[in-house]
Amino acid sequence: MSMSNRTVVVTGAASGIGAACAAMLKAQGARVIGVDRNEPAAGTVDRFVQADLSDAASIDAAAGRIDSGVEALCNIAGLPPTKGRTPVLQVNFVGLRRFTEALLPKLADGAAIVNLGSLAGFGWQANSGEVRALLEVNRLEDVEAFCEKHAIDDARSYFLSKEALIVWTMQMRWQWRARAIRMNAVSPGPVETPIHQDFLQTLGERAAEDMRLMERAGRPGDIAPLVTFLCGDESRWIQGANIPCDGGMAAHLLCQSIGLG
Amino acid sequence: MSMSNRTVVVTGAASGIGAACAAMLKAQGARVIGVDRNEPAAGTVDRFVQADLSDAASIDAAAGRIDSGVEALCNIAGLPPTKGRTPVLQVNFVGLRRFTEALLPKLADGAAIVNLGSLAGFGWQANSGEVRALLEVNRLEDVEAFCEKHAIDDARSYFLSKEALIVWTMQMRWQWRARAIRMNAVSPGPVETPIHQDFLQTLGERAAEDMRLMERAGRPGDIAPLVTFLCGDESRWIQGANIPCDGGMAAHLLCQSIGLG
Repeated sequence: MSMSNRTVVVTGAASGIGAACAAMLKAQGARVIGVDRNEPAAGTVDRFVQADLSDAASIDAAAGRIDSGVEALCNIAGLPPTKGRTPVLQVNFVGLRRFTEALLPKLADGAAIVNLGSLAGFGWQANSGEVRALLEVNRLEDVEAFCEKHAIDDARSYFLSKEALIVWTMQMRWQWRARAIRMNAVSPGPVETPIHQDFLQTLGERAAEDMRLMERAGRPGDIAPLVTFLCGDESRWIQGANIPCDGGMAAHLLCQSIGLG
Repeated sequence: MSMSNRTVVVTGAASGIGAACAAMLKAQGARVIGVDRNEPAAGTVDRFVQADLSDAASIDAAAGRIDSGVEALCNIAGLPPTKGRTPVLQVNFVGLRRFTEALLPKLADGAAIVNLGSLAGFGWQANSGEVRALLEVNRLEDVEAFCEKHAIDDARSYFLSKEALIVWTMQMRWQWRARAIRMNAVSPGPVETPIHQDFLQTLGERAAEDMRLMERAGRPGDIAPLVTFLCGDESRWIQGANIPCDGGMAAHLLCQSIGLG
């Protein structure tokens, strides 16, 4: 597979998994437009578009600055739970969705969208009521009231943001079928990124237990190849999928769900 | 990614998805050993090893004829429900597992195993009791008695075989961790293969409903790129996963499970 001469938009391109995706896509010949709050290091993207995904005007302005013909969109930007419940739900889901919808007219027919889910989003079925309520929140300024009404705390906000992202990915499976635009999610477990310590701090024992089970934490370079694969035409038949990329952690939890070791 | 000079074993290499996988792996430079009941067309594999996956002696003999240093094993061979419950469970699960275990000493450290699951295996959680019972059946000659005891009919045997294959894939997530050997499953929906009509015949309304929802049936060439990706080092962090490759059908069923359209 090659991404030669394809234009790809990568959010969160300045650090962590987003930076690794930008690097791999560039290595395969893509022209990478990096979207981030912070400017990526020199030479790591072909063009930088500044955006704050918790701010509607910033999101719309960023989408407006991107030209038509985008062949893949990687929604990698995300905040850890330490940033607080409202920014977390805004950036990780409501703003991500707004940016995607704003960019849709700029996507080429046949384009791929890849969302960065998480093992933390794994409980979407058990929490489907809360997820469905969040799917109804369309305005970024309504997120704080949503948190208050549903008593979402900081730790929960991260899980819920990823649950909603996974469900939305599935729900949009055929939304843009006429244009052959498809969307999938990649769900890492713990990954060594600049925000890894934030997770350990907020999630406490659960995160520590994950690390005991895993032979090592994931690395951004473990995740980027799957994201890159999902950007290309060879993955065209994968639609609305949520793919674990976690060193076996999702399989571990699923086995436990039926009492298998 | 390149499979250049890698030795890959592909079961079911003579037709359908197995043949497509063999072709794509060869195109990427792999040396393909095709395992099948029938001889693949001339030039489609580098070496042919005849085997009947419903027969223990045949399985063990085939594994014995393969040299050490295998870097990937693709378990693609499978029978449709029209072949009858006992051969279906033998070939699609119990024999597949025996062949995999027989080949383990021949696998290189870091090797990848890819199993062909199915959207039909989706109900593994709901049917976990039957799945766990089948996981305990180790001898091919005990499969008929298992079917009798659990009142498995031909149609059910296909679903159960894929449910068990998916659960076994998850269960083995860390089984060979010391050798860095990992196993994943790819789950297609309906695919235009020589056995596609068999499914429509046995599964009736369910298969017809799937086809109404899908824009088209899958093609072997839609599935082979994911299998090939999972054979290579770039997918090393994907372990014990079951990945849908089905034009959105799994997402459709999962959304319905929480009452979302």
